[in-house]
Amino acid sequence: MTTPQPSHRTPPAHTDPTEVSLEAALLALSDPVRRTLVRELAGAGDWERACGSFDVPVTKATLSRHFTVLRESGLLEQRDAGAKRLNRLRRTEFDARFPGLLDLVLQGD
Amino acid sequence: MTTPQPSHRTPPAHTDPTEVSLEAALLALSDPVRRTLVRELAGAGDWERACGSFDVPVTKATLSRHFTVLRESGLLEQRDAGAKRLNRLRRTEFDARFPGLLDLVLQGD
Repeated sequence: MTTPQPSHRTPPAHTDPTEVSLEAALLALSDPVRRTLVRELAGAGDWERACGSFDVPVTKATLSRHFTVLRESGLLEQRDAGAKRLNRLRRTEFDARFPGLLDLVLQGD
Repeated sequence: MTTPQPSHRTPPAHTDPTEVSLEAALLALSDPVRRTLVRELAGAGDWERACGSFDVPVTKATLSRHFTVLRESGLLEQRDAGAKRLNRLRRTEFDARFPGLLDLVLQGD
């Protein structure tokens, strides 16, 4: 039996979608890499995708920054599981705050 | 009877909303001054508002740039009438291209 490794990282800080401004939401979604992350998350189950599993043409530091922007705009929930950081698109909550916006992104550019 | 002054300016170039990318639309609406312009236009009739009639805290050159971005993102139609440049929000066309997006902006921040 495997014992999960405890994570010693600081748990990620989240912003509730109800507290996100329209400007923050529009800016978060105006970046093509972030739209790719959002679309890939929409195509996966909750907590299925680890941060390292996304194939986007950016450095690790830039990718980390994109995840932060997505958390701060109420689009992303993250939790640590051992060495992995797992992701969930906050689709229902974000849809409730900004009806139709995520649908536009998921339809493609 | 007044004879309208002919305009010698180059007529403004427009982009049809059907040819606007989601990224261009999101970036256009992510600016607070442009959202103010869009909201004021939504509250006025077509061609009622001249460019000089908007009370926004930017220079004339910056305001002109904002109008260009709004034209290029399919949100704004402009035409010259003598010395005045008049404006129309392309609400129906933009709504058809990006359903729900303008509504989010018109609801406020």
